[in-house]
Amino acid sequence: MKRSRQPRGRRALIRSQILTAAADLFRARGYRAATLDELARTLRMSKATFYGYFHSKEEILAAIFHRTISLFEEGIRAIRASGAPPDEQLRRVIRHHVRAVVAERSFLSVFFGEEANLPAPLARRISARKARYDRTVRAIVEAGRRRGVLATVHPRLLVFAVLGMSNWVYHWYDPRGAWDADTIADGLIRLIERGCMVTPRPGDGAGGRLGRLERDVRALRALVTRRARVPRGRN
Amino acid sequence: MKRSRQPRGRRALIRSQILTAAADLFRARGYRAATLDELARTLRMSKATFYGYFHSKEEILAAIFHRTISLFEEGIRAIRASGAPPDEQLRRVIRHHVRAVVAERSFLSVFFGEEANLPAPLARRISARKARYDRTVRAIVEAGRRRGVLATVHPRLLVFAVLGMSNWVYHWYDPRGAWDADTIADGLIRLIERGCMVTPRPGDGAGGRLGRLERDVRALRALVTRRARVPRGRN
Repeated sequence: MKRSRQPRGRRALIRSQILTAAADLFRARGYRAATLDELARTLRMSKATFYGYFHSKEEILAAIFHRTISLFEEGIRAIRASGAPPDEQLRRVIRHHVRAVVAERSFLSVFFGEEANLPAPLARRISARKARYDRTVRAIVEAGRRRGVLATVHPRLLVFAVLGMSNWVYHWYDPRGAWDADTIADGLIRLIERGCMVTPRPGDGAGGRLGRLERDVRALRALVTRRARVPRGRN
Repeated sequence: MKRSRQPRGRRALIRSQILTAAADLFRARGYRAATLDELARTLRMSKATFYGYFHSKEEILAAIFHRTISLFEEGIRAIRASGAPPDEQLRRVIRHHVRAVVAERSFLSVFFGEEANLPAPLARRISARKARYDRTVRAIVEAGRRRGVLATVHPRLLVFAVLGMSNWVYHWYDPRGAWDADTIADGLIRLIERGCMVTPRPGDGAGGRLGRLERDVRALRALVTRRARVPRGRN
């Protein structure tokens, strides 16, 4: 019996290890500056073994982009399939992004920073998948508007704001810091739920109306209570 | 009288034109891939003239970073000096970032994307200035908390969320689109003012106040209606 050169699972595992090491290296040194020699050295792998997995730096970059966009696509598919209300789906989008960024920070840094180095046909395909992804998040926001649970901001702007604050985590996240992904996601969710301004500006919708209502009710109560003092005894 | 080689204002103008063309080129092709030959060609400038302004690609990259961080620093200085209330200062930070990103998109793309290509001593200086900038924005948020006008989220997270959603504009802004910088800034400001969720979760500020108001009004109506039935005639 002929022995297969390598079991499939092991091959996938090594491919994945190479991608992770490559993403770390590209993030630290920049894609153009990094070399396959450096990468093979980091992995303690001969160039010959290495070429059994990838034939060029560009092929690795493509694989990093595919894996990253696939990660986002899988997340949004599960969120859409959950049937949760739109506002809850939007919360889950934030959670998914922050978790992805924290878990795969190097992949995300390459994904958001090295687009200019993609060969044109691949750049077009990735750009189309990103646009489709954005449209799916926008569909969540539009559904929320129709149901009256999401408002305030133009749906397209809300999508970019939410993805922007979540993706930006890759710029500042420090794995040695005290916050894990869910702590960060919870904070961002609270912010988009209710904002951060305690005293809305005069004339603002709900705040102003609530304040007026509260004053009216106090005045009414005072009025009714005064009447109650008219000497008619308690009733 | 000796003629000066070039008036100072004109020299600064040409330097600035070179930086703008370089930022556009670096953004489109990536810093490492771009060459000084290409840049000189784009500017219709001989290499000899060009070297009268910059001696290396690295020097140009450094100048782009200095100019960008200075732009942010000038903005925050003016905002701090205004003496406006902290929540208003935070609104102005958003407006300043969005305007900067929209006006200098290529500079910002290079600034946020090419950090790995900075020589180490410069990278450290830029990183220190960025950290100081973040601390200044954080001081605004902390002042807002002390005055009770900013809340909801941890100050550090609020800073990153606000800067993240504002800076992210460089990823999606389309100068051919319908939105100008102030339209985008206004939307982001509304979002951080009051969030986007119309039905806050139980226990939330507005929801709780509304619930109490509804109960108060029902109680008052019951009180007034009962009294109205007491035979005392209309008054």
